[in-house]
Amino acid sequence: MQIKCLIIATYFLIPQLIMADQNFGIAVHGGAGVMKNLSEERRTKIEEKVNETLTKAYKILNDGGTSMDAVEFVVSEFEDSPLFNAGKGSVYNSNEVQEMDASIMNGKDRSAGAVASVRNVKNPIKLARKVSELTEHIMLVGDGAYEFAKNIGETIVDSDYFYSEKNLKRLRKAKDKLVSSNIIHDKIGTVGAVAIDKNGNIAAATSTGGMTNKMPGRVGDSPIIGSGTWAQNGVCGVSTTGHGEFFIKYQVAREVCARMEYMNKSISDSSEEILMELKDINAYGGLIAIDSEANISMPFNTHGMIRGSVSNKTNINVAIY
Amino acid sequence: MQIKCLIIATYFLIPQLIMADQNFGIAVHGGAGVMKNLSEERRTKIEEKVNETLTKAYKILNDGGTSMDAVEFVVSEFEDSPLFNAGKGSVYNSNEVQEMDASIMNGKDRSAGAVASVRNVKNPIKLARKVSELTEHIMLVGDGAYEFAKNIGETIVDSDYFYSEKNLKRLRKAKDKLVSSNIIHDKIGTVGAVAIDKNGNIAAATSTGGMTNKMPGRVGDSPIIGSGTWAQNGVCGVSTTGHGEFFIKYQVAREVCARMEYMNKSISDSSEEILMELKDINAYGGLIAIDSEANISMPFNTHGMIRGSVSNKTNINVAIY
Repeated sequence: MQIKCLIIATYFLIPQLIMADQNFGIAVHGGAGVMKNLSEERRTKIEEKVNETLTKAYKILNDGGTSMDAVEFVVSEFEDSPLFNAGKGSVYNSNEVQEMDASIMNGKDRSAGAVASVRNVKNPIKLARKVSELTEHIMLVGDGAYEFAKNIGETIVDSDYFYSEKNLKRLRKAKDKLVSSNIIHDKIGTVGAVAIDKNGNIAAATSTGGMTNKMPGRVGDSPIIGSGTWAQNGVCGVSTTGHGEFFIKYQVAREVCARMEYMNKSISDSSEEILMELKDINAYGGLIAIDSEANISMPFNTHGMIRGSVSNKTNINVAIY
Repeated sequence: MQIKCLIIATYFLIPQLIMADQNFGIAVHGGAGVMKNLSEERRTKIEEKVNETLTKAYKILNDGGTSMDAVEFVVSEFEDSPLFNAGKGSVYNSNEVQEMDASIMNGKDRSAGAVASVRNVKNPIKLARKVSELTEHIMLVGDGAYEFAKNIGETIVDSDYFYSEKNLKRLRKAKDKLVSSNIIHDKIGTVGAVAIDKNGNIAAATSTGGMTNKMPGRVGDSPIIGSGTWAQNGVCGVSTTGHGEFFIKYQVAREVCARMEYMNKSISDSSEEILMELKDINAYGGLIAIDSEANISMPFNTHGMIRGSVSNKTNINVAIY
């Protein structure tokens, strides 16, 4: 009888001991680019929002919640804020319309969901997760994605919800600059999160309004699994921000994990190296990455990147420059 | 004077000698899946079409043409044929509409173009190449891609062009089967080509009508750079066909090259290994791959894959089973 009790106790205790050993944490970003136009007031607002959201997301993980729930929470919070280029704060395309992209991936089974070029959906990241969970597909775009959103009761908002005088001005500025063939340096912005939970499951999520003055229907790296988002248990989770076309051509999100998996690089070596290589070819942006031990890397090759992280072994850290 | 002539002669001869050393070739596919319903007549037609197209594409390369021109030629020929699930032969989505995806990548500079969920465009692969060459973007989807096609004068056709009684029957069969939750084994089909030219430039292209009964707006792996299409000079070019969602989750096209680049695997070891791993998780399909020495690998884990290849060191080879 005593032996039986011991076996039963061991059976229940071992998983908890394993769980206690598992480090957990989360990293978030709010876009990379030239931050010189950031007022002191706006900077404070952004830092407060990142801090507050990170704190709540960490609580989800600390309470035993999943990394999928934590990253979806962060990204949807950022989508609801006008401070970031995603959801409510999305920039305008060349037709003065917001078309949004988002994706989410679960490292446990590599299940993934993505939406691209969707309009009037309040939270593209929630829709992306629904694509993963409710359909046999990974990616839905355009009208099809919108119809799916309506059919499953996702929150639809009218175009006024996304109205932003600031973003309209940015569009007009971009159009003027485009005429003189200058590169717009401040157009890169995206939000994202990567996390690992107490069960060792890694998740990643990314959402964006894309580039100011992009062509209608343009899709960047954010909704592309492997380019903007990647999650692979035992290796890493990555969310990127930057000039999307380059991040597609260099498969940045998966590349961080590939170099860890096949070249035994650490998460910081792998991600910093890739960002340096991108800089060499004038490809600008940044990324956040987390490995299976909750080590976090957040390199960027731009003037700044809105970012923050916290884990069971590191304090909360929020920074822009 | 003699020395001058020698220098000039050497200057012109050396590149030609280098070019003469460069092996070149092309591989094509017309989809993988269960081929048991293929009549003798249809099988002959397919083999003839593949043979004829390969012969013309090889002539492009042999005459000094680019791998980009060769792969675009093959894929657009297959798009114009009702024999394949791409362009004219595209299968129907659940709304009885054809929505097509395509992508093309140039290994020389990693430039790429993709379109997804486009309707009424006669040759999605040509449109994908135009996205790469005429815009600063890589991917355009839905209405935006259609508007771009119209604006640049790409051939637009009405829906009758794509009408197929056979494909409509397949859709209805799929809908019936879906009700009883059976998996449709014969729904996977895509066309693609990979090539390396006399200058050592690798290109890859893929085009599809997707899955029968797919949701409107569903995008598979074919237009996803890294999943369905990849080209990287010095390493390899890949085009895939199969259950697209799995090919996205496993980044199959780039993965073939990643294992060659980081694990020093041969093209056949890398691509065969990946196809076996996919089979282990019930993910079915195939791929064609070419390396920088024009070695070609065409593995599949299905009943058959329509395929063919030819290079300066191997004879033309066309097969299905």
